[in-house]
Amino acid sequence: MTSPAYSHHFSINNLPFGVASSSQHPQPQCVTRLGNTVIFLGDLQRAGLFREVTSLPRGVFDNRTLNAFAALDKQVHKHVRQALQSALQDSGVKKLPIGSTEPITAVRMHLPVSIPAFTDFSCSLNHVKNAGRAILNDDTPPPGFFHFPIGYGGRASTIVPSGTPITRPLGHFYDRSAGIEKKTVAYGPSQAMDYELEIGVVVGTPVPAHRGLDATDADEHIFGLVLLNDWSARDIQGLEMVPLGPLNGKAFGTTISPWIVTLDALEPFKAPGPEPHVSLPRHLQDTVDFTYAISLKVELEHGASSTLLSTSGAQDLFWSHRQMCAHLASTGCDLQTGDILGTGTVSGPAEGSYGCLLEITQGGKVPVALSDGSSRRFLQDGDVVKMSAVAGDESSGVGFGECVGELKPARAS
Amino acid sequence: MTSPAYSHHFSINNLPFGVASSSQHPQPQCVTRLGNTVIFLGDLQRAGLFREVTSLPRGVFDNRTLNAFAALDKQVHKHVRQALQSALQDSGVKKLPIGSTEPITAVRMHLPVSIPAFTDFSCSLNHVKNAGRAILNDDTPPPGFFHFPIGYGGRASTIVPSGTPITRPLGHFYDRSAGIEKKTVAYGPSQAMDYELEIGVVVGTPVPAHRGLDATDADEHIFGLVLLNDWSARDIQGLEMVPLGPLNGKAFGTTISPWIVTLDALEPFKAPGPEPHVSLPRHLQDTVDFTYAISLKVELEHGASSTLLSTSGAQDLFWSHRQMCAHLASTGCDLQTGDILGTGTVSGPAEGSYGCLLEITQGGKVPVALSDGSSRRFLQDGDVVKMSAVAGDESSGVGFGECVGELKPARAS
Repeated sequence: MTSPAYSHHFSINNLPFGVASSSQHPQPQCVTRLGNTVIFLGDLQRAGLFREVTSLPRGVFDNRTLNAFAALDKQVHKHVRQALQSALQDSGVKKLPIGSTEPITAVRMHLPVSIPAFTDFSCSLNHVKNAGRAILNDDTPPPGFFHFPIGYGGRASTIVPSGTPITRPLGHFYDRSAGIEKKTVAYGPSQAMDYELEIGVVVGTPVPAHRGLDATDADEHIFGLVLLNDWSARDIQGLEMVPLGPLNGKAFGTTISPWIVTLDALEPFKAPGPEPHVSLPRHLQDTVDFTYAISLKVELEHGASSTLLSTSGAQDLFWSHRQMCAHLASTGCDLQTGDILGTGTVSGPAEGSYGCLLEITQGGKVPVALSDGSSRRFLQDGDVVKMSAVAGDESSGVGFGECVGELKPARAS
Repeated sequence: MTSPAYSHHFSINNLPFGVASSSQHPQPQCVTRLGNTVIFLGDLQRAGLFREVTSLPRGVFDNRTLNAFAALDKQVHKHVRQALQSALQDSGVKKLPIGSTEPITAVRMHLPVSIPAFTDFSCSLNHVKNAGRAILNDDTPPPGFFHFPIGYGGRASTIVPSGTPITRPLGHFYDRSAGIEKKTVAYGPSQAMDYELEIGVVVGTPVPAHRGLDATDADEHIFGLVLLNDWSARDIQGLEMVPLGPLNGKAFGTTISPWIVTLDALEPFKAPGPEPHVSLPRHLQDTVDFTYAISLKVELEHGASSTLLSTSGAQDLFWSHRQMCAHLASTGCDLQTGDILGTGTVSGPAEGSYGCLLEITQGGKVPVALSDGSSRRFLQDGDVVKMSAVAGDESSGVGFGECVGELKPARAS
């Protein structure tokens, strides 16, 4: 599913990377996007457009994923982007080789990378406090929160590109119909389906095991950022996560936006993040401007109705994309090309900025009103969750497009 | 590192699958083992030994991993094993094609499969009780324990074959030198390194997402079992795992034994497991004889000394290998060929049967004496942890060989 509505996110200052196919280009291959035009990079390479980019392997854009390109040195990614900007500077896509461009409505977007591993973090102090209040009536952050970004191993194999439906999962949970104090365990379709608004870091140049990585060096290993919806079955997650963390409450599906926005495109939007609360070891120390001014929003659509559920900002995150990478690599773990590291829910401090229903409805206790007069404690079948994000404001020319998915009914158990 | 000491584990009744290379066979490729002889399966296929096995792709054993073979229908695995048994029945390896066999001491064993995902469970009620007593002075199992096998997403990329050294990880932990009540957080080399004795299930024929799987059908999707050492930095894990579970305390390295023992080889050792404590949904219901009589042991070697630390049995596990698969697939998650599902620590109920130091030393409080007169609360650099396992008793002819790794000093931080 591809939407022409985000043309303004994809100016010449963006030029993100993705993977698309179409009737003219039946094999999925590497692309970029200018406005509502998709540009097939293999065609440009064959036409000699990247001839001055050294170390760019022949045919690298003909692959079904961006992994081979993402694994190259960061300088190669920069040079390709510069070559594209030069080619598009004067007359846009008009002078590109015939057949190398197609309208966004004619293509199908695929997963941009093959994802060897997905690690999801909890980088937002606001989310941790809001969720703590909603579930435990206690907003004290976890003991490690201020020392390092807390995370868990997610399921990479069920990450799908924007537009793919998500099936309501089956699982075990406390049956609330028996009374909240009863703690009877039931098995069936989740009764507490939620989304989580996140940013995903896509690893480019790999980091070998036992090498370690400083946050200030992490940009060299980050291919770019995507939007990520960490769909969550709160009831399944709630029962299973003591003490080993979430598994089946998350493993059934995760959606990412199809365009990987590079850090080069985001560079003009660098912004300061929160100050550390405690002294950090070297690998987690970062510069003041460690994050970006990225505005995110979540809309819930059902049938013809659409309701804005939240707006929040990447600057609200306590830990940065760079610190997540440094923390994961610090014990001896490697970072593989295509690995995705999620920030956890991006939530602001106040009502209207909460990045999941758990926070908005206080764990299902206070329904949220939708524009069609209905309300939600958690998601209903047929609900479409649409996330989008833009650097700076809507006039910036650098955005993520959308990350969208519809919740479908559970399979027969 | 390959050991000839386990010849008796590899009778004609075993015939496990692995991947080996040697000076004669420089490319890693698929093998089996009879006694101390390694048999290169590609050579046998070229000589026509498997000509009566339908649906066996040409060259499938020439791959660097077993994934292509493991992904085939279970019947194909059975037929290959039967063809091997027929060929070896009368005169052992003597009549095999020249050059198709080598002594175990001449080969190097590799990871038998490429591992897309590693999910680690907590299937032992004894381990949960012992660990709870050691850490929290409370042996009440987690709320979900009797309802489903509790698990978390492990790190697949740092799984290494037996014999690979493990580097002590760096991380954050409570600095005990400041007094146990102080809760000062320090960063540095782990001070509480542990092993966990586990059995790993290797997925064969995949299960698509949103298909689901009944435990009673799971054998069709299990290629076989390995031994697994889930190295754990208890201090790093202890601080990070609230509330999202273990990450860096485990992600630095996991060791598996190189031979995948098939369920066909284990069939004569089928044995009853514990009775469920609560009524289970259909997909988790299993037959009475859902497990195998497998005896496991852990030895700690340092220099010339060797100490037996524990013996335990697979029948001690509350949840079976089949139920782990069914649980993971139940919400909508897929199972991929090569995925590994770990059982969690295999511990018995009494002293001498605890499958990790956390249990043996009660969280480091009571040192365990080694045969050289030294003692351990947790592992020292240079300690070699050697796990081995055999079906039935040592005369059975069906065993796992060993899963061994030496702990090396932390890198400079």
